[in-house]
Amino acid sequence: MQRVRAHALTVSLDGFLAGPGQSKETPLGVGGGDLHDWAWATRSMRLLHGLEGGEEGVDNEWASRHDDGIGASIMGRNMFGPIRGPWQGDDWTGWWGDKPPFHHPVYILTHHPRPSIEMEGGTSFHFVTTGVEEALERARAAARGQDVRISGGAETVQQYLSRRLIDEMHFVIAPVFLGDGARLFEGLSRLQDSYECVERVAGERALHVRLRRVH
Amino acid sequence: MQRVRAHALTVSLDGFLAGPGQSKETPLGVGGGDLHDWAWATRSMRLLHGLEGGEEGVDNEWASRHDDGIGASIMGRNMFGPIRGPWQGDDWTGWWGDKPPFHHPVYILTHHPRPSIEMEGGTSFHFVTTGVEEALERARAAARGQDVRISGGAETVQQYLSRRLIDEMHFVIAPVFLGDGARLFEGLSRLQDSYECVERVAGERALHVRLRRVH
Repeated sequence: MQRVRAHALTVSLDGFLAGPGQSKETPLGVGGGDLHDWAWATRSMRLLHGLEGGEEGVDNEWASRHDDGIGASIMGRNMFGPIRGPWQGDDWTGWWGDKPPFHHPVYILTHHPRPSIEMEGGTSFHFVTTGVEEALERARAAARGQDVRISGGAETVQQYLSRRLIDEMHFVIAPVFLGDGARLFEGLSRLQDSYECVERVAGERALHVRLRRVH
Repeated sequence: MQRVRAHALTVSLDGFLAGPGQSKETPLGVGGGDLHDWAWATRSMRLLHGLEGGEEGVDNEWASRHDDGIGASIMGRNMFGPIRGPWQGDDWTGWWGDKPPFHHPVYILTHHPRPSIEMEGGTSFHFVTTGVEEALERARAAARGQDVRISGGAETVQQYLSRRLIDEMHFVIAPVFLGDGARLFEGLSRLQDSYECVERVAGERALHVRLRRVH
């Protein structure tokens, strides 16, 4: 059965998925880059980005699930780029260069229409202005039987969580403080009625928590 | 050297130390009681409260540090009782019955003066209206060389953390969601300059994190 999954959503000890002041220079906000030190230390994350080396172990095992069996993904427009408001031309094609590490169709939630973009390596970007449900429908169809990933950021995850549309979610607690920014869990009520915490594991550099939808 | 420590401060997956709507009937707010299921399952917590049974293991080991070497403690008035504003007489003597599980002097931060109370078993309650620093001075003197514990709640911990007066802190992430309430980490900036995350462990029922002050 096709599932909707979220993986490796990494928060600080104080609960922030990104620090304050997100911009082109600091995509994850001030201090936010440190959140993913655990992931960059793993073999599977490095491999995904064409880098050598990296550790195997608990963190690596969790990191490797991020792409396993994913056929399409969805993200908020702030995760795609720093431009706010209408797209200023077609120049911006994401943070990831000519060959982004997705290799599948990516649906981007936005209020501003824009033509789809085909990138190298099988990644395509599609801009959805008709809401989270329609984005999910399109991603489901495009995934060809594989699972759909909700990639982030905080607001996008919250929209899918509040509608109980995520079946399985892996989040990570990294040993840093950000003090301010975008919280992963904010304005979400009665999650406990729908989600069960099925796994809690300490990795080499971070803590891993897995949630499963039960209703 | 005498230290200031916090132990077993337990937050939900979404970061709340207590749920919404704290009252005499729900001291930890709606759903907040579930936070401490991990602690009540341990031998050392049960022993402290005169109960038999309980498990040994990782969670128990962390729970046992809560009282180890503590000679005095400090709490906010909301942790002591449900009364807000001036004390309405001297009837309320805490949530814990005639023989509270402290067995040492407890300093309670309040804006409203009240005479000290001697309880059975070595616990005494002292009401401090002159601020967090003076409460700490008094607790340090009363602890007779042992350590001082900052017991909670959220606001009290935040006041001591923001002044960098806590030397060591153990907090726990329990597998529940509260959705709303009092966050442990709120309005605290640049903690990363003063605190290092020195331990991250998965227990049987909860995750444990230990912070140490480095500056």
